[in-house]
Amino acid sequence: MLPGVGPRSAQRMAYHLLQRDPAGADRLAAAIGHARNTIGHCRLCNTFTEHELCSLCAGPQRDRSLLAVVETPADLLRIEQTHTYRGLYFVLLGKLSPLDGVGPRQLGLEPLAQRVAGGEVREVVLATGFSVEGEATAQYLAAWLTGRDIRVTRIARGLPVGGELEFVDSGTLAQALLDRRELGP
Amino acid sequence: MLPGVGPRSAQRMAYHLLQRDPAGADRLAAAIGHARNTIGHCRLCNTFTEHELCSLCAGPQRDRSLLAVVETPADLLRIEQTHTYRGLYFVLLGKLSPLDGVGPRQLGLEPLAQRVAGGEVREVVLATGFSVEGEATAQYLAAWLTGRDIRVTRIARGLPVGGELEFVDSGTLAQALLDRRELGP
Repeated sequence: MLPGVGPRSAQRMAYHLLQRDPAGADRLAAAIGHARNTIGHCRLCNTFTEHELCSLCAGPQRDRSLLAVVETPADLLRIEQTHTYRGLYFVLLGKLSPLDGVGPRQLGLEPLAQRVAGGEVREVVLATGFSVEGEATAQYLAAWLTGRDIRVTRIARGLPVGGELEFVDSGTLAQALLDRRELGP
Repeated sequence: MLPGVGPRSAQRMAYHLLQRDPAGADRLAAAIGHARNTIGHCRLCNTFTEHELCSLCAGPQRDRSLLAVVETPADLLRIEQTHTYRGLYFVLLGKLSPLDGVGPRQLGLEPLAQRVAGGEVREVVLATGFSVEGEATAQYLAAWLTGRDIRVTRIARGLPVGGELEFVDSGTLAQALLDRRELGP
C-alpha cells in the first residue's frame, strides 16, 4: 500500500515491529495518528503544515510577486531543495486528467484566482511536470491566466545538466532545438 | 576495442566468423577496408561522406541561414533523426578539453570562421552537449562569435519530455526554473 513497499517488505516490517520492537510499533502508530490529527493544508498555498499558514507563506523572506504552481507538496519540496527559487507557491493537489474525472472544477482553482487577483503576484511560473496531464494542466492555466496583466512562464524543457545529445530521446532533443535560447554577448 | 563489445563478446564474434561464416569474415574485412578508403570528411561541415560535400551541404533543400554546431557526426545524425531541424551543420570533431590537450587551436575553427564570414549564416545554434567540455566549448564559441552580426543561440536545458519534477536531478530542475520561458496568450 505504501510507495516502494511490496508484500514481502511489508511482511518483514510487520514482523520486525511485532517481534523485535513492540514499543517502536506503538511510537509509529502514535506518530502517524498525531500527523493525521495535526497536519492540514496551508490556507494560502495548500501545502502540508501544522499551522494555518506554512512557514514559507507566513515568513517575510520570500518574493511575493513570484508564484510557482506545482502539482503536489512533494514537488514544492523538490524545488525548495534546489535552493534557487525565491518566490512562493500554489499547490494544485492534482492535475487535469479527464479520464480520471479530474476537470478544472475538481482542481479547485478558486484560491489561486483569489491569490492572483490580490495584485501582489507579477509572475506565475507554471511548474507542473511534462507528463501529458502536467502539460495539459499548464496549458489550461496559461489560457485561464491570460488577460490579467501577469507574466506567465513555464519551466524549461530540454537536455539534462551533464547530458549528451547521444543519450537523449528524440522528443526531448527536438524540444531542446525548438526552445533554443539566445545567448547574450 | 569497439564500443559495447567486451572481451567475451569479441571472442564470440571472432569464433563465429572463423568457424561458421568465413565468407562473411571476408566480406566484413572488405567492407571495412572499402569504408576506410572511400569515406572522408565533408569539405563544408566535416561530417562523414563519400563525396567532397555531404548530401545535406550539397542539396538545395536546407535553410543555409541556420548553422548548428555539433561535437560529432553521431550528434548530427541524432538531430536529423528528430526531423525538426531544417538548417545546416558544422561538426567540430571534438570539444574543448584542456586536460586532454584539446584547446581552441586543436578544434580547427578556421573552416567555421570562413563559413560564418561568408554572409549566408544568420544564426548559429550551439548544439554541443551539456557535459563540462560541451558547455565550455559552447561558451568559448559564443564569445568567439560575438561582434559578427549573427544571432547565437544554445539548445535548451531542462526537464525531459514526459518528465516529472519528482524524478529529475536538482541541477536540472534548478536550470529549468532559471531558463523558464514566457508563454504567449
